[in-house]
Amino acid sequence: MNSHTSRPLAQFLVSARWEQMPEALIHEAKRSILNGFATAFAGCNDAVMDRLIKTLSGFSGQPQASVTGRKERFDVLTAAFLNAVSTNVFDFDDTHPKTIIHPTAPVAPALFALGEYQTFSGRSLLEAFILGVEVECRLGNAVSPGHYKRGWHITSTCGVFGAAAATGKILELDAERMIWALGNASAQASGLVETLGSMAKSVGVGNAARNGLVAALMASNGVEGPNSPLEGERGFLTVTSEAPNFAVVLENLGSNWELSKNTYKPYPCGVVLNPVIDACLEIANTPGFDATKVRSVTISGHSLLRERADRPAVRTGREAQVSAQHAAAVCLLYKSASLTEFSDEAVNRKDILWLREKVEVIVDDAVAVGGAHVIAWSADNSRLQATVRHARGDAERPLSDRDIEDKFRELIIYGRSGLNPQPFIDAIWRLDQIEDVSEVMALARL
Amino acid sequence: MNSHTSRPLAQFLVSARWEQMPEALIHEAKRSILNGFATAFAGCNDAVMDRLIKTLSGFSGQPQASVTGRKERFDVLTAAFLNAVSTNVFDFDDTHPKTIIHPTAPVAPALFALGEYQTFSGRSLLEAFILGVEVECRLGNAVSPGHYKRGWHITSTCGVFGAAAATGKILELDAERMIWALGNASAQASGLVETLGSMAKSVGVGNAARNGLVAALMASNGVEGPNSPLEGERGFLTVTSEAPNFAVVLENLGSNWELSKNTYKPYPCGVVLNPVIDACLEIANTPGFDATKVRSVTISGHSLLRERADRPAVRTGREAQVSAQHAAAVCLLYKSASLTEFSDEAVNRKDILWLREKVEVIVDDAVAVGGAHVIAWSADNSRLQATVRHARGDAERPLSDRDIEDKFRELIIYGRSGLNPQPFIDAIWRLDQIEDVSEVMALARL
Repeated sequence: MNSHTSRPLAQFLVSARWEQMPEALIHEAKRSILNGFATAFAGCNDAVMDRLIKTLSGFSGQPQASVTGRKERFDVLTAAFLNAVSTNVFDFDDTHPKTIIHPTAPVAPALFALGEYQTFSGRSLLEAFILGVEVECRLGNAVSPGHYKRGWHITSTCGVFGAAAATGKILELDAERMIWALGNASAQASGLVETLGSMAKSVGVGNAARNGLVAALMASNGVEGPNSPLEGERGFLTVTSEAPNFAVVLENLGSNWELSKNTYKPYPCGVVLNPVIDACLEIANTPGFDATKVRSVTISGHSLLRERADRPAVRTGREAQVSAQHAAAVCLLYKSASLTEFSDEAVNRKDILWLREKVEVIVDDAVAVGGAHVIAWSADNSRLQATVRHARGDAERPLSDRDIEDKFRELIIYGRSGLNPQPFIDAIWRLDQIEDVSEVMALARL
Repeated sequence: MNSHTSRPLAQFLVSARWEQMPEALIHEAKRSILNGFATAFAGCNDAVMDRLIKTLSGFSGQPQASVTGRKERFDVLTAAFLNAVSTNVFDFDDTHPKTIIHPTAPVAPALFALGEYQTFSGRSLLEAFILGVEVECRLGNAVSPGHYKRGWHITSTCGVFGAAAATGKILELDAERMIWALGNASAQASGLVETLGSMAKSVGVGNAARNGLVAALMASNGVEGPNSPLEGERGFLTVTSEAPNFAVVLENLGSNWELSKNTYKPYPCGVVLNPVIDACLEIANTPGFDATKVRSVTISGHSLLRERADRPAVRTGREAQVSAQHAAAVCLLYKSASLTEFSDEAVNRKDILWLREKVEVIVDDAVAVGGAHVIAWSADNSRLQATVRHARGDAERPLSDRDIEDKFRELIIYGRSGLNPQPFIDAIWRLDQIEDVSEVMALARL
């Protein structure tokens, strides 16, 4: 069969060179990686990490690679799995707006784990990271929007290809073997939206990193895949999308970089909630507003908002991260939307429960994706409203480098690793000067 | 959300008892397991096994569990992966006719690997095996026929649930945790038909065993999943089928057993080829037939046959296993359809190439699934034809216990492990009397 997508993509990956990558793109890679470690440090002591480590440690190989913010060391594959989990566990990591993929979680942990096993430079890592993100986001573009809507957790399903491409680049696979790496990844592409709000989500995201890495390692050892794992009649794009757009996988490859569109979250929630939070914070900070007097709250947004975040009844912090009702309630009551407001404890607070029940999500497709309109009615029939076109952290209002550093410092405290943030921050900004990336993980582990 | 399918299924698994299982069902479980080890012994030295072992051995944990027919030992998860690969690598294992699932490969290797890690009896293993097969086949029933047709490799996608259920039973999960095990499996359900004919297929099947086992272990350690991983709006059945039939998951649970419908292959090919092979062997054995004089061959069958096996150009033994053209050519030329005729060497033989090009597959939906009609025209315009309604190995013409033993002996020779078959065969027939199933793997390893 004519490999009209997989082969040219693989050829691009094999021939892509650092010298062709613009400086701004490389800087964006550092921002993504710093933001990714920020959320990994936040999540490193979460209960899901403890339970996964309890499960896997009896089966892990040699202590080859580190876990961000922790003492334990595991084999390379297990470390990649665990670091992807901690990076994404709070959904506080980065977002590729068009697909809602979290690009860094599957790719960076696979690369850093491999970097503790074989020696390569920060420059090689950045190059491979950029290419891996390119692959997962372009595949995401090709299957969106139907893929996620159908129920595929796109970060996991597309992420495994990103991890395979990135680590395949480090392993210096030729084009044939790069296609095999994508093919071995295609056999492992999984992850369901149904698992969101439960710990099982993390199993999918962890596997994206681990299985992408193992796909590339297998390819390097001669485990062959099909010729057209992506575009084949029963290949990944065809099977997981009603109307796959093959062309966008290759269009402007090497000039239009998906990573340059990456965004970073100011709040630990599904990205669709960012404008809701901005609007609610605006209302909450209006002089004279009293949340305890609220009679009802109406959130109007694009149908995507209701589809992903209309969850009036939540029982856990994880579910709360994708609940518009919970987000509105905590912002109006506490004027804050940090990890504390999206904890298991917060979910069951009586005042939050009380206000959550008064919040309704309404579809108004006149509101752009990424925007929201919120009206809070008080018992005396007065109302306050706020409209947000572009939320903080959106491509139009990006977090600054300083914002990301601040987020890193805040999250390192939240995650209780006790690590000193500054040496690590410095290392990421000069990652392209580092000869051996295992030095970075040496700064991340306890 | 109302867990109308996952919860009752989990409750059934938790409460099911050995005493309620008919003797014939238990005997069928032994037949399935013996047949599964037969194909594992055949595949244990295949190139894909060497390449996967080369890839994984650097990351494996303690040598906890064995690989059938080999010397190496690996951690439990890796051993489950590898034994599922060898069991299914030639597609010579068992078949659940309605779904074309190979039921044993994902389930038995997960159980036997776990049995080298914690002690349990052959009776417990048989009970868990029967339940695991029940789960994967019932889920397969619920998504068929659209699921495979769409491009999902059903043995992998449904197999992971079978492995999770079976090992979850051994781990004595309660109903809540059994739902989590199914949820953790749902996050890992993967496998594409596009990979068939390549080594990447084995990655999917190996993962079904490994990831099902890890899903159950995670659940036992408190890794929570969604309430409705199967029937949820974005759960496995809903996402991977256009028209999921939820009811058949639960219908007559505990009285109508899917394992009792299991079948065993007489030939190392996709099961749709069995009637083609029987028909071609009948023609080849007709006195006076001369394959070198054949002008053209027409195979008529149900549309499923063409969909799965119309592959005139094959380059590898693996592709040949699902090629009607190759199967017809070797049977007509060599009057045999063993692993030798489906090797990489056979694929490139000039006489086979010559005849393969003369074979055409025609859809005739009047022919039942499982049947075939073959006409061979000779250069002198004479013709021979054969019609097969039920192929050897079908439910209507099952292999006898002796046939399965013979297959086991033949395949142990093919796989070159040098193992003495009789003690192992004896152990499987008295599996329900064995106190510690690790004794079985002690007989299977070198």
